[in-house]
Formats: sequence, C-alpha cells, structure tokens
Amino acid sequence: MAREAKRCGIVLAGCGTIGGATAIHLVRDADFLERKLGMRLELLKIVDVDFSHAKELGLDGTLFEKDFDKAIASQDVDIVVELIGGTTIARDRVERALAAGKHVVTANKALLAEAGNQLFALARENGVSILFEASCAGGIPVVRALYDGLAANRIDALYGIVNGTCNYVLTQMTERGESYAAALAGAQKLGFAEKDPTLDVSGRDSAHKLAILSAIAFAQPIDQAGFSVEGIDNLDLCDVCYGGELGYVLKLLAIARREGDGLYAAVKPAFIPKSHPLAWVSGPFNAVSVYGSATGHTMYYGRGAGPDPTASAVVADVISLALGTGQIYFDSLALWPDRAAKNRVLPRRESRTRFYVRLTAADESGVLAKIAAVFGRFTISISSVLQKEPAGESTSRPGVPVVITTHPAPESAVCDALREVDALTEILDKSVCLTILDEHQEFKAQ
Amino acid sequence: MAREAKRCGIVLAGCGTIGGATAIHLVRDADFLERKLGMRLELLKIVDVDFSHAKELGLDGTLFEKDFDKAIASQDVDIVVELIGGTTIARDRVERALAAGKHVVTANKALLAEAGNQLFALARENGVSILFEASCAGGIPVVRALYDGLAANRIDALYGIVNGTCNYVLTQMTERGESYAAALAGAQKLGFAEKDPTLDVSGRDSAHKLAILSAIAFAQPIDQAGFSVEGIDNLDLCDVCYGGELGYVLKLLAIARREGDGLYAAVKPAFIPKSHPLAWVSGPFNAVSVYGSATGHTMYYGRGAGPDPTASAVVADVISLALGTGQIYFDSLALWPDRAAKNRVLPRRESRTRFYVRLTAADESGVLAKIAAVFGRFTISISSVLQKEPAGESTSRPGVPVVITTHPAPESAVCDALREVDALTEILDKSVCLTILDEHQEFKAQ
Repeated sequence: MAREAKRCGIVLAGCGTIGGATAIHLVRDADFLERKLGMRLELLKIVDVDFSHAKELGLDGTLFEKDFDKAIASQDVDIVVELIGGTTIARDRVERALAAGKHVVTANKALLAEAGNQLFALARENGVSILFEASCAGGIPVVRALYDGLAANRIDALYGIVNGTCNYVLTQMTERGESYAAALAGAQKLGFAEKDPTLDVSGRDSAHKLAILSAIAFAQPIDQAGFSVEGIDNLDLCDVCYGGELGYVLKLLAIARREGDGLYAAVKPAFIPKSHPLAWVSGPFNAVSVYGSATGHTMYYGRGAGPDPTASAVVADVISLALGTGQIYFDSLALWPDRAAKNRVLPRRESRTRFYVRLTAADESGVLAKIAAVFGRFTISISSVLQKEPAGESTSRPGVPVVITTHPAPESAVCDALREVDALTEILDKSVCLTILDEHQEFKAQ
Repeated sequence: MAREAKRCGIVLAGCGTIGGATAIHLVRDADFLERKLGMRLELLKIVDVDFSHAKELGLDGTLFEKDFDKAIASQDVDIVVELIGGTTIARDRVERALAAGKHVVTANKALLAEAGNQLFALARENGVSILFEASCAGGIPVVRALYDGLAANRIDALYGIVNGTCNYVLTQMTERGESYAAALAGAQKLGFAEKDPTLDVSGRDSAHKLAILSAIAFAQPIDQAGFSVEGIDNLDLCDVCYGGELGYVLKLLAIARREGDGLYAAVKPAFIPKSHPLAWVSGPFNAVSVYGSATGHTMYYGRGAGPDPTASAVVADVISLALGTGQIYFDSLALWPDRAAKNRVLPRRESRTRFYVRLTAADESGVLAKIAAVFGRFTISISSVLQKEPAGESTSRPGVPVVITTHPAPESAVCDALREVDALTEILDKSVCLTILDEHQEFKAQ
C-alpha cells in the first residue's frame, strides 16, 4: 500500500469470538480510525461457513461470503485477517492469501508455531508481509516491543506469563488455597478455561507463544520442538504453599534466555521471588518480562486473551500495514524467522538453576543425613531445608514432607541425584522437583 | 530516508551522561545493528563545548566538533540527536536542525513540554519528523505503545509513575518507614536524586512528561499549564503509614483521564490500592498504566532514567527514522500535538474522586460529630474513620490524628469543607488532604 492510498481493503476470514470482535471494531470505529490515520480501513468481506455469530453481532449481511477465493480476488483487498484458528483450513487460507499478494494479519499461535518459518518465507516470495501481534500475548503489544521499541538492544532473556487460564488457576491456588481441580473448575465456570483445558494446562499454548516470541527476540527460526514443556496439571497445592513459606510464588513461565554461547528455552512451572514484578501478575492477566542489553528489565502487562484485547492487537497490525510501517519492518529487519540462523539450543540437562525439591520421608532419624550425602556426591549444594511436622492422622499421606532448596546446579545432576534419593528405602513417594528462578541478572557481560 | 539507502548519518548534539551512552551504543553496536537493520547507522559528528566526558569514554576524537552548523551541514546527515538538555541552546539547535531538513530525536521533556507544539509544526513545515521516546519514561517504549501498539484504541486514561527519584523516596518511606528527609538524603547518596532535587520532588519533571504523554494519548496540543502539579516535598511519613493501614500505597502519579466530556489531568501524590499493579512499582523503576477502549488495562514497566535505558529509547527512534517508519507515523497520524485540537480540560475543582483527610483534633468528646456535621453539610459521604490513640508524651505533636476517607466527592466540596473544619477550635493543625484512586473502571461506555 502506498502512503498516498486513502483506503485499505480488508477481508476477514473467520467470524468466531475474536473475528466477530475484530469486525465490530473495524466497522464501528471506521470513522474514528479514519480521522486518526488519514486513511479509511474498509472491511470488504467476512468469510466463514456459518454466519450465525456475525448475525447476532448485527454485522451487515452484505459482507458475508462463503467463498474465500472470491472474497480475496478483488484488487481492492490489501490485507487478509486470519482468525479461523487451527492449523489446517487456516494454513490453507493464509497460503492462498499470500500467494495472491495480500498481506496477512493473524492471531494464530498454533499455526505460526507449526508453520511460521514457511509462511514467512512464502510471504517474502510474494512481496507481502505477515504481522501477528495478537498471537503471543493478546492485547499486550509485546511483539512490537521486541522488533521496534527495544530495537537497540540485544535481548538477553524473556520470561512470560502468557496463558491466562494457567495464571488464573495458579492465582487461586496461591491466594485462596484451592486445589488444582477446584481452581480449574472455578476457571471453567468463569469462562477463563475451556471445557477441555488440555491445550492450556499442559503448557502447549504457552509453548506456541514462546516459540514465536523467542524467534523474534533472538532472531532465530521458530522451533517449537526445541524446548521442553511442562504444564500445571500435575501440581500439588502443598508445593505452592511450601514455596510461599520460602518467599516464592509459583507461575507457569515461558522462559528463553542466553546462557553461555547457547539459548535455554522451556515452558514450566517455576518459583519466582515474591518481589519480582511477574509474581504480582494475578488472575487471567498476562505479562512478559524482557531483559535487554541496554534497557535492563522492562515488563509488558495486560490481558492476554479475550475478544476485545485480541481485536486491539489485530487492528493495530492492520493499521501498521495500512500505513506501510509493517512492511518496512518485515522487509528490513533480519530477525524474522525465515531469515534468521539457528541458535545453539542448550540441552535442558546442561542448564544451571536453583531447585525446589520435596521428598516424602519416613519419620526416622538419619534420613536427612542420607539425603544430604546423595546431594553431596553429585556436588549439589543445599541452600535450605524445611522439614514439616508429620501429617496428622486426618490425612492419608504417609511420611514427612522434607522441602529442600538448592544452590544453582545442573538439571542433569539434580535429576540423577533424585533418582538415587527416590530409591532410598526411607523415601516413601516419588520426589517433586521444581525450578526456582532468582531475579535475572541484568546487564550481564556477554 | 529512502528504504534503499544503506546508511544513515547521525549528528549527536550534547555529550553528557546520556549523550555519551548514546554515542557508545551507536559506535559499539554499529555492526550488530547493521546486521539487524540491513543499514549502517553512522555517527558522523559529536557536537559539544567540552569533550572531556567523550574522551573519558574513549570516543574517537575525529568525531568531535564544536560548530553545530558545520556539523550538520553535510548532505550525509539525516538525523540530529539532541541530548543537550535545557530549553535554550537545545531549542536553538533543534530549530536549526529542523530548518536544515534534518529529522530530530530528542530526550528533552522540558523542551517538548515548553515548545513541542511549535517544534512539531516546524518539523512538518520542513518535511521532517521529531521522535521523542526517551523523553517520557526513559527505556520504557510507552510513547510507541500510544501511537502504534494501542493504535486501535481510544485511550480512556493513563496513570504514570514517571519519576524515579520520587518513587525511590516514596518506596523508602513506605517500606522502611524513613522520613521524607532521610529517604531523600539516601536517594542522593545512591545517585537516584540530584543535589538540587527540586525539579523532581516538586512534581515538575513528572508534569513535563504528563504534558507530552497526554498530548499523544488524547490527541491534543501539549499544555503543561493546563493541569495542577503537586510534588512529594510536603509529605509526612505518618500519612504514608495511615494510608498503608487502610490498604493503600502512596505514589506520585501523573494522571490524565477522560471524565464526562472533558479531560482531567494532574500530577499529585495519590493513594492507590495495594492490589493495583502500579502499587508494586518500587525503587527507581517507572511504569505507565494505560486504559484503552479495547485492551482495557495495559502497563509498561522499566527504568525511567539512566544512561543506557535512555540511550536504548534514543537509538530506537534513530532506527525508526533510518528505516522510514518514524516519518510515516509522524506524517500520517492526526494525534501529534501540532495537528490536534484542544480537549476541554476539566477544572480541578470539578473532578470527583475519593479523598484521604487527616485532621489533628483536640482529645475531647464531640469533635468527630462536629467534623461529620461539616462534611454532611457539603454532602460529602464518609467512607471510613480511623482515630488513632493520642500521641505519647515522647512526641511533641499536639492532639489526636483523625483519618477520614470519603466516598467520591467533588474536589471543590472537600476543599471548602476542610476550610470550615480547620476553623473549628477543636482542630489544632492544618488538615492534610490526599487523593485516593480506586481501580480505574475499565471498558466504561463513552
């Protein structure tokens, strides 16, 4: 689109919750946005197989079109907004839009995590761009912070709370002492969790977002297979509580950071100090902490999901393409995943961090000494030990919980040590091991 | 600059702390940035009257130039970065740069607050742009969030902690119970406050930033005279403590929000609920909460000052102009202060909010009834009363502190009521009155 063009034509594919909200914003705010941009954003067609939601929203029926190719055929169409979701039809439509020389805006994290590298390359072949602000953190403009606002920085690390369902559940566990099951049921009741919450609670949704965010932050191809993913679905309330006693809050974090000459990436529940800003992010809110070489710590906070916040990010991308800035970033910067070289991904077992370990020990003397001996053999230094009173008769748990925190140690050593500890006859149940993240060290020399 | 251009020439005016850091980033990171941008950012000249700091930093002496006009005369100069500070020489240099057809990047909030409207107009006359990310919140890319990331939104409100000195002092008072004087002395010792801290503690620095931020957020001319400004220099530790007992944290806030058909803006110390994310922002950190019509609450957090964070924002603007995106935003958007119409500014006395009032009353029966009667006459509804034990003999304060919080009331009514209350013979000292801000109501209908 040249800057002289006074209108920009848009086709919206998918009119579900997000698509509907986006359509409403484009139609209702057309005058407001025209005054602001000096350009009219014109929603030309809405493509879907079923327009019942679109009709409920009162959208103009002359916009409805079932034939995608027909909808995008006109010269007047500059941008295709893909809000279908999933990776099959959505991928087909994005590919057809790019091949037809249309810019694409998408909120589809699963699609980009799976096929982003190819889709970016396809866009480039066809001289068009893909923008995807809404795919990573809903209404929080953090993708832009990475490619624009922090452009002067080498990004050293990012830590994201990027799944509202998980954060809501963990907040309820932390603040109200609810069990995982009760917190999840409550989230479902309030619409913060899907009926089938697997994608969210397994950490996979966060992994899609981390794959995209870390690609842009570290200028590398999107690689969702390149890091380990743990969810919140196996968490026990008692660990949330014991961690709390030690000064930590448990969050599901998407983590990517430089370590030595490699990159460490993972999605996992991790304890963070109560004083860290991410510890404050509660309920369905999301936030991403980014550590830049010049800015140090910056954090971006807001709603990571929901129709209006997501539509806000989608329309911001539409505006960027309508004005022509999106294309410049897409054409000029070397950080897009189809252009970038692969970083060395640090094998998980090499990464050094602190650990929270909970053991279930027989209530006998000398157990702690045996445990300490194993840790010592693996040169894992113990930072603190919290031995709880034996559980009362009212609970059915056997044994005494022993909570140990370690100084930084390689994950491999801790895993190996715990295998030995778990084999001790005095250990009555499988150990629980969670990462502790201390405050990220800023302005670290490379 | 055309996108084909493979280099972008920069003149840096002012090589103090921020200028020096910016020069270092441009020189040291030139290769890194060239790989990222596909374009070389070339620092052509550093203009100053004294190069001792530049020499200390090891900057190349061939870059030093005392004659500003000579430095910017070359066709190779695309951007002038103004980091001189102040409003006299800096203004002259910015005007000369714009008149010579050079884009300007500045971190100078005082200059923009005073002369931004004219400078933006001058830039437009000369077909060039001014970018100023570093002027409002140091390393936090919040100006971009307003003109780009949140472009789809009507901004309803912004609340900013935009002065690190004040936030550090208030954090020490809140968390350590230090007096204002002790906290300020500590801040000076650590370099978080200037020897003469007046500009910061009076709220004037925050007012400069609010004038700029609210101009962009609400698309209006910069008007630093249009709102009231209070600092932290008259605060008493006991109010920080009593507010804490009531569940609030005292912060120096830059506030701008739509109210009815007008805009309310002010810089003042205000109590916010401990659960609000801004309450967590501690020490020298800054944050800006922005409430958008589609996103609801988003917050941007980071370092609001310091050489490297500020240089990060300056270089981000340089990059934006080098790529050509900055010009597009500057040319296309209607929100810049030289283009925007004035909003109706709500007179301070019309604004309705809650209040914290501390009275010093004689330890006699019936005083509270008299106070309540005055409040009632002004139809100010009392929300809570906290009457403290009389101060012990060890303190020299006379009377009993009575802390009253009100329901929302017009500022004028509260001022008038307090004038009457203060005149009661049972009131022994001038009342203290502070604003309480409850959680901003999101997604409010226009």
